[in-house]
Amino acid sequence: MQEKKQLNIGIIGLGVVGSSVAKILKENKELICARAGCEINITKGVIKNINKTREIFDFPISNEIDSILEDPQIDIVIELTGGVEQPFLIAQKALKNGKAFITANKAMLAYHRYDLQKIAGDLPIGFEASVAGGIPIIKALRDGLGANHILNICGIMNGTCNFILTKMKDEGVEYQEVLQTAQKLGYAESDPTFDVEGIDSAHKLLILASIAYGIDAKPEDVLIEGITQITQEDISFAKEFDYNLKLVGIAKKDKDEVELRVHPLLLPKSQMIGKVDGVMNAISVVGDSVGETLYYGAGAGGDATASAVISDIIEIARTKSSPMLGFKTSIEKGLKLKKIEEICSAYYLRLEVLDKSGVLAKVAQIFAEEQISIDTLLQRNSKQNRATLLLCTHTTKEAKIKTALLKIKTLEEVQSNPVMIRIHKP
Amino acid sequence: MQEKKQLNIGIIGLGVVGSSVAKILKENKELICARAGCEINITKGVIKNINKTREIFDFPISNEIDSILEDPQIDIVIELTGGVEQPFLIAQKALKNGKAFITANKAMLAYHRYDLQKIAGDLPIGFEASVAGGIPIIKALRDGLGANHILNICGIMNGTCNFILTKMKDEGVEYQEVLQTAQKLGYAESDPTFDVEGIDSAHKLLILASIAYGIDAKPEDVLIEGITQITQEDISFAKEFDYNLKLVGIAKKDKDEVELRVHPLLLPKSQMIGKVDGVMNAISVVGDSVGETLYYGAGAGGDATASAVISDIIEIARTKSSPMLGFKTSIEKGLKLKKIEEICSAYYLRLEVLDKSGVLAKVAQIFAEEQISIDTLLQRNSKQNRATLLLCTHTTKEAKIKTALLKIKTLEEVQSNPVMIRIHKP
Repeated sequence: MQEKKQLNIGIIGLGVVGSSVAKILKENKELICARAGCEINITKGVIKNINKTREIFDFPISNEIDSILEDPQIDIVIELTGGVEQPFLIAQKALKNGKAFITANKAMLAYHRYDLQKIAGDLPIGFEASVAGGIPIIKALRDGLGANHILNICGIMNGTCNFILTKMKDEGVEYQEVLQTAQKLGYAESDPTFDVEGIDSAHKLLILASIAYGIDAKPEDVLIEGITQITQEDISFAKEFDYNLKLVGIAKKDKDEVELRVHPLLLPKSQMIGKVDGVMNAISVVGDSVGETLYYGAGAGGDATASAVISDIIEIARTKSSPMLGFKTSIEKGLKLKKIEEICSAYYLRLEVLDKSGVLAKVAQIFAEEQISIDTLLQRNSKQNRATLLLCTHTTKEAKIKTALLKIKTLEEVQSNPVMIRIHKP
Repeated sequence: MQEKKQLNIGIIGLGVVGSSVAKILKENKELICARAGCEINITKGVIKNINKTREIFDFPISNEIDSILEDPQIDIVIELTGGVEQPFLIAQKALKNGKAFITANKAMLAYHRYDLQKIAGDLPIGFEASVAGGIPIIKALRDGLGANHILNICGIMNGTCNFILTKMKDEGVEYQEVLQTAQKLGYAESDPTFDVEGIDSAHKLLILASIAYGIDAKPEDVLIEGITQITQEDISFAKEFDYNLKLVGIAKKDKDEVELRVHPLLLPKSQMIGKVDGVMNAISVVGDSVGETLYYGAGAGGDATASAVISDIIEIARTKSSPMLGFKTSIEKGLKLKKIEEICSAYYLRLEVLDKSGVLAKVAQIFAEEQISIDTLLQRNSKQNRATLLLCTHTTKEAKIKTALLKIKTLEEVQSNPVMIRIHKP
């Protein structure tokens, strides 16, 4: 893209984030233009239902996407809608028409990031807003840590889950109750599945893993577990044994494989990322040269996300030509996605069992059969002849723990589905 | 700078950081070239004493700086020496000869960053390594947060001081003893003045403040206090009242002024930056759109710093043309440096006094005269008719507390120099 005196922008989608982009571009205009080195104007906006918005924008609004995509005066198309295939079509058309493209759409990128990088050629694509809102993690990983082989990424990338787990820890209330509070406060959707089941985190993880490893994978290929099974029993175990319990996304290089996984994790209290509470997000990245770095901030919200969108506009205005994912030829050659069953971890298990003799022996026997060695064992007696068995294993393979859990489930003394949480071993 | 198939690099200074740059460029060559989009070769190295190095480099070494500066084949000059004026001369000559320039030299930048931005024109200057080692804070502030008016920056930017304060907290030992440990471990120089007196932090703060505010100031203009006066008395007060004690650099916008200061700070335990322990660095940046973001990592060390140097090489290779400090026309117009006496804070004071009646009244009278109101007061009796008065003030002006301290010093009951530490008020 050639250096210009003025950049014309079209925004598709003027909800919370889109409105914030318009507002900040107006309020901080002088500062942003000084940093961009040119004038930046929103020329057009597009919204789905033109009668629905009550906001007044100082640029023309229509419901015709093509009025932006086909306008030869527009240099940058910003896509802030939902879904996967429709925004992908928008991106394709924008790029085909020679426009730079900016998106905050993680779901679309989780499926089509490589398609986009291919179609884009030398046209810039910005997607800083797609991961962890206002935290400039895409640029950090793609630019700031470019010298490094990335050893692993561990991110708290969903504010809803982190809010819920923090409240459960601080106030001792159960998941369902905190979820309702989160919904009232607007931190959780009325249907929270996407967040609490880890899908949103997985989309973000896939984007980061592409920049770090150049690895192509889809959400379906990734181990994803949410936080709905967590109880106060688990939270108090974590407290007692100096862990913080967080929903994390992990990308990790292991020889010629990358493992990608989203699940609750018990993190030793000394780990910086475990100290991140409330709705805040943070991503820890370990590079072979730099060691651990961590990036912390608001992972959602209109203004924070708009801050990221505008940073992409400034980058494009400065006529940088960074390749979308940060590499022009393939990196980390030959890296494959590790099979879920091959992933290794230490595990925490919670079993509700009948409090009678022989139960522990049966459980121990199952672990022995799977060659899983036990690190810690804690039995708590509850009422009505029931006991809770909490146990932690040494590092073992996902396949083995899954088999053990299946066997444990068949024991007649086991009263409910065993709960399993992975433990971070530094 | 035009896009090239190969970039030739000359490194001036091959100490710890320079050697790491050479090592990583070799070991991670394939990855770095894929990210840079071209070949990167070190063509020449320069060291002061050519007989002193025992390392073997796979590029020619000389002690003639001009052999790099005047070589028309060299595209990028990397300066990794010490001092201020000599490296500034190197930078001038490199830029005059049309070469891109990369430096890790914070002292030089603390004095000459605006000179360099002026001389550079469109030639790129990289200085990611000058602040907080491997943490990509320059790029975060200049690129990632470009949409934001920066409300304040608070950084732990000196690993030596953070190591000392952490050890004092965790092990209950006094400053002098920990300093010796730090020296043995290589975390502190044999003459630690530059680190423990806050000068190193001030250099880094000035660099960040330029990017955030476009403000020009020199180290001499800035409030700088070190950590040498801190005792276990202060540490245990901090623990008791749920503070973390850290040496921080603060840049803060207040109307049309910017305050710049380096000093120990009592941070409420809930503040993320207070949780950063050991030799690690972290910088918290609050933007008007994004809210608080924080960047954490290793602030020193050969490999971490080299990671930052190489990120600058990659940026230059990608033919970005970001202006050095992130703006082409002036930003935050009219911002002036706030006078030190006008800076407002809450204060913690430790006074060693004779344990006799009337002392407290005299001290209280002085505070009343200066219209300083007291928030907390704690008296601890020690042996031999002495007592320790610990008191915290509400927010007041630096000028007032300084006057009060002068008056307090003249009281015959006050047995040693009062110690003053500022307190963070969110």
